[in-house]
Amino acid sequence: MKAPTNPKKSGEFEIIARYFAPLAAGVPGAFGLKDDAAFLEIPEGHELVAKTDAAVATVHFMADDPPDLIARKTLRRNLSDLAAKGAVPHWYLLDAAFPRDVGDAWIAGFARGLARDQAEFGVHLVGGDTKSTPGPATFAITLLGLVRASWGLHRSGAHPGDELYVTGTIGDGALGLLARKGELGGLKPKAREQLIDRYRLPRPRVAVGPQLLGVATAAIDVSDGLVADAGHISSQSKLAIVLEEKLLPLSAPAKAALAETPALIERVLTGGDDYEILFTAPASVAKVLEHLAGEMKVPITRIGRTEAGKGVTVLDAAGRRRELAQAGWVHF
Amino acid sequence: MKAPTNPKKSGEFEIIARYFAPLAAGVPGAFGLKDDAAFLEIPEGHELVAKTDAAVATVHFMADDPPDLIARKTLRRNLSDLAAKGAVPHWYLLDAAFPRDVGDAWIAGFARGLARDQAEFGVHLVGGDTKSTPGPATFAITLLGLVRASWGLHRSGAHPGDELYVTGTIGDGALGLLARKGELGGLKPKAREQLIDRYRLPRPRVAVGPQLLGVATAAIDVSDGLVADAGHISSQSKLAIVLEEKLLPLSAPAKAALAETPALIERVLTGGDDYEILFTAPASVAKVLEHLAGEMKVPITRIGRTEAGKGVTVLDAAGRRRELAQAGWVHF
Repeated sequence: MKAPTNPKKSGEFEIIARYFAPLAAGVPGAFGLKDDAAFLEIPEGHELVAKTDAAVATVHFMADDPPDLIARKTLRRNLSDLAAKGAVPHWYLLDAAFPRDVGDAWIAGFARGLARDQAEFGVHLVGGDTKSTPGPATFAITLLGLVRASWGLHRSGAHPGDELYVTGTIGDGALGLLARKGELGGLKPKAREQLIDRYRLPRPRVAVGPQLLGVATAAIDVSDGLVADAGHISSQSKLAIVLEEKLLPLSAPAKAALAETPALIERVLTGGDDYEILFTAPASVAKVLEHLAGEMKVPITRIGRTEAGKGVTVLDAAGRRRELAQAGWVHF
Repeated sequence: MKAPTNPKKSGEFEIIARYFAPLAAGVPGAFGLKDDAAFLEIPEGHELVAKTDAAVATVHFMADDPPDLIARKTLRRNLSDLAAKGAVPHWYLLDAAFPRDVGDAWIAGFARGLARDQAEFGVHLVGGDTKSTPGPATFAITLLGLVRASWGLHRSGAHPGDELYVTGTIGDGALGLLARKGELGGLKPKAREQLIDRYRLPRPRVAVGPQLLGVATAAIDVSDGLVADAGHISSQSKLAIVLEEKLLPLSAPAKAALAETPALIERVLTGGDDYEILFTAPASVAKVLEHLAGEMKVPITRIGRTEAGKGVTVLDAAGRRRELAQAGWVHF
């Protein structure tokens, strides 16, 4: 952690009262984080959708990343998962283990990041646990949302013959990580910055996800990597997926990077950290999706199709089957 | 971690499939941990009760503690919180960051501990995240339960004139920690073992908690320490609490330790790790509580009272006000 020597360090209760309790102000059942548990009202006809995801310094973020961005990325990775299920996120619980040399200023920055994303995505902190650790900063967020009962989207549910779609653009996160590590040459500074920004701060498709209920047949968020996540739909829906490279939606910086180094296409396909929604839908809803993309101002691009069989096939620009060294990122 | 050099170490997906997915078998909406999120049905007329709590090796448990006990204690600390709210626990999500030198055998033991407590307490794993960490083993559990809407117990709600009660016995966890560290002399081996066992494996009052709905006026689980937790009821209910040492329920080993070293009474009062339910109730329900204690086979002991005012006063065996050096354990 980039922290001054001997920074001011408040105790557990002070930290909760000063930095985290204000984040719980919007939910009466959170009792300002002053009770043992949160009480949450679930409206009739809804299911609860729950997801947890953790991040460890040096493994999932760099220890000198700005604390607000670390907080926001951890929250957004969960938001992305709920979006892909068609759920509306409402509440989250945070387990934070701060290294001993992290002071109040760092924690304040972390909480500021959460506050900003709470405002952007309409979620609230309802519980948490603040600890000290002799190891790297470690954060776990459990996000809770709601979806109309039995309407939620799953990895299973695709039918052979469905089209395969993805929101936004693919590859920016993985290329941004390379750029961050100084391993991506030949790009203009602005393009580099755009990619690094996408790596540091995912744009979960929180508004789009719930709009896919009744439209998509299966969905997943692209975090492990496009091919690996397509593989999850393939195995859970028990069908084959054919993915066409020439259809991939790429950002201008990603196109520039690929023009410079064509071999980066493999990174785009498997690098992960995209936090877009990959989903299947029957061809009959193409117009609905076109309308939705316009309404939401988010690109929705057809990138392939499903068929009877199993596994994921990637066709390169010439229509040939591409062999991939690694299908996707494994965090462990 | 006590782990062999170069132990067998499976990848993230294998670990989830082999050790954690079986723990999710009882809940259809967990999809065998093979989807991005769990879908949970909330019966009408109920509120969701959510709590999260983390544990870090060397801070909250010893790195060479048996993995099954580490898992069970982390789960049980959350179970204790929900019990004190009168909620019935149903589901939990686990964020596990395993050190790199921890192999499959250790993880298998950890999962075995969870399986055992799932059977004992009727809860199920519905989601999780398995990571590797360069630091100490770090676990966070978010526990979800249900309570009849608006019936839940809180730290607030006590009325001046209520009696103060506690379940089970107090002090065993804190004395057990001392014994574990070799700092508790003059006890027979069996008594030592009993105290260490209580420290390692809390007995959350999961069955008792829901029985207190409509009976107790305020409740909290005793984790920070009896005096500190009484202080939380005091401040949230805006009244004074008077606690009488001579009424404290003590186990036989705790009595033996106190007979040997009377000064340990301070540790009993403030050491925490008791995981009993401290609650207030009007004098009119004394008979109901007596009956409940018999039914549940759990002691319920009156240890003091509430009155107008503020703060917690501890009266020693002679009825004099005791000054305490530290009110309770602060984890941070």
